[in-house]
Amino acid sequence: MQIAMVQDRIVVLEELEPVYLDRGLFFGDGVYEVVRSYNGKIFALDEHLQRFANSLAGIGITGVDIKQVRQRVQKAFDAAGIANAKIYFHITRGSGPRDHIGEGELKPNFFLTITELGDDSETKAKGIAVSTHPDWRWKRCDIKSLNLLANVLARRDAVQKGCDEAILVDDDGLITEGSSSAFFAIFGKVLQTAPLTANILPSVSRKFVIKAAENAELKVVEKSFTSKQASGADELFIAVTTKDIVPVVKFDGTSIGDGRPGKYTNLLIQEFRKFTQ
Amino acid sequence: MQIAMVQDRIVVLEELEPVYLDRGLFFGDGVYEVVRSYNGKIFALDEHLQRFANSLAGIGITGVDIKQVRQRVQKAFDAAGIANAKIYFHITRGSGPRDHIGEGELKPNFFLTITELGDDSETKAKGIAVSTHPDWRWKRCDIKSLNLLANVLARRDAVQKGCDEAILVDDDGLITEGSSSAFFAIFGKVLQTAPLTANILPSVSRKFVIKAAENAELKVVEKSFTSKQASGADELFIAVTTKDIVPVVKFDGTSIGDGRPGKYTNLLIQEFRKFTQ
Repeated sequence: MQIAMVQDRIVVLEELEPVYLDRGLFFGDGVYEVVRSYNGKIFALDEHLQRFANSLAGIGITGVDIKQVRQRVQKAFDAAGIANAKIYFHITRGSGPRDHIGEGELKPNFFLTITELGDDSETKAKGIAVSTHPDWRWKRCDIKSLNLLANVLARRDAVQKGCDEAILVDDDGLITEGSSSAFFAIFGKVLQTAPLTANILPSVSRKFVIKAAENAELKVVEKSFTSKQASGADELFIAVTTKDIVPVVKFDGTSIGDGRPGKYTNLLIQEFRKFTQ
Repeated sequence: MQIAMVQDRIVVLEELEPVYLDRGLFFGDGVYEVVRSYNGKIFALDEHLQRFANSLAGIGITGVDIKQVRQRVQKAFDAAGIANAKIYFHITRGSGPRDHIGEGELKPNFFLTITELGDDSETKAKGIAVSTHPDWRWKRCDIKSLNLLANVLARRDAVQKGCDEAILVDDDGLITEGSSSAFFAIFGKVLQTAPLTANILPSVSRKFVIKAAENAELKVVEKSFTSKQASGADELFIAVTTKDIVPVVKFDGTSIGDGRPGKYTNLLIQEFRKFTQ
């Protein structure tokens, strides 16, 4: 008799709920998005859905109707009635007996949560501390997949060091991005960030930061830089969907600028806010 | 109201079953093992449990009693009553709201399945075809984690090419291992395989293959080799828990030897069998 065991409980395999046999659980065989709303309005949903479609294509999950995903997101958002909401959703290749290939007819699994975002004005006013960690992630970080253990381990390491985010550094000593954010430095009137390669997520926030920088008359340079260069920057910040721009005031223990959020970073926060209204 | 959505169904987040919020699903934040039995006897359970303990430690999941895991495996195996069983089990960091850190008190989730293994004598007699794929995996493949999307994509690529396994090749053109197997070449009376580094799984089958090779008076060399070298080998094979040794008779379209399982490979299959009795 083929069986399964959930903690101590033995069940007949065929009677198990499909979620236990989700390929997302066995292999991380799925992709996800995080979207947020500002004051009752979902921000940049088109951009997120476009990236989601790219991620699905990137791992060969077919037959997903993006229009349906949009409808589900909207329906759930309306049902939740949360003004400043974090909307997480993923699609996996489906549920079935564990085999790498995923043979036979698999039906993609859709899952979504909507939770309330807290007020982050204090974090934005004070800034955060970050620490570096080797970038252990796989080689296709352009795909927003459920394989996030390297990100989790880096973040947990940062928290142990009293920091709020881990900044990932590749084998060449170059910063790629944060464990769940894009990373930016300001040198004089230049905003610098790593270029989009196969190992950088095409961050939606990154796109709006670059647009904000142009409005703020900063020159944008897409070129990788080292931890040492980051430590010597005039300003640093991260960008992430749930919090848009968050100033970084400490990098591996070194104070950045005067240890408070920089003027251009604050200006970019204001510029970014205009997009979300 | 914080909500979740499973396919089309909206549910209150707090009423969702914990498995939907498993960090294994959100992040692949867990580790696993596959063990098998031969004729009613579990093979190399100690070795697998030792590696499982190492994997748990590698990602900082604490508080797991390996003795209890052993008892669960044995209890489930006895309940299933399958002579030639594939026993899969994983432990994740726990269930909770999706955040990278995994704050608060998380209770690890244990999950296991026992399924029946088919007869593989025909596969062993005929051998299999393999194709190469870039090794896109993360940098800590010494940890047997649930982050297996790179393995899945490589395997799916192999199947599309009419092959049975994908052999992973790193940026330096060196073979690391198979998508779910260790990989070996025989040159004359030398058995060669990649050395154990941070990016090779310390395969239990590999250990027994090396022992078998010593019994068969083959010299064992732990040194990486290229695809070109593999194509020119006298014999090739993979080793994996569920099938122990499987001859490889075609490598990226090139026939190996006379296109049939080689004599040393067959000898190693016999030697391996002795360990399992």
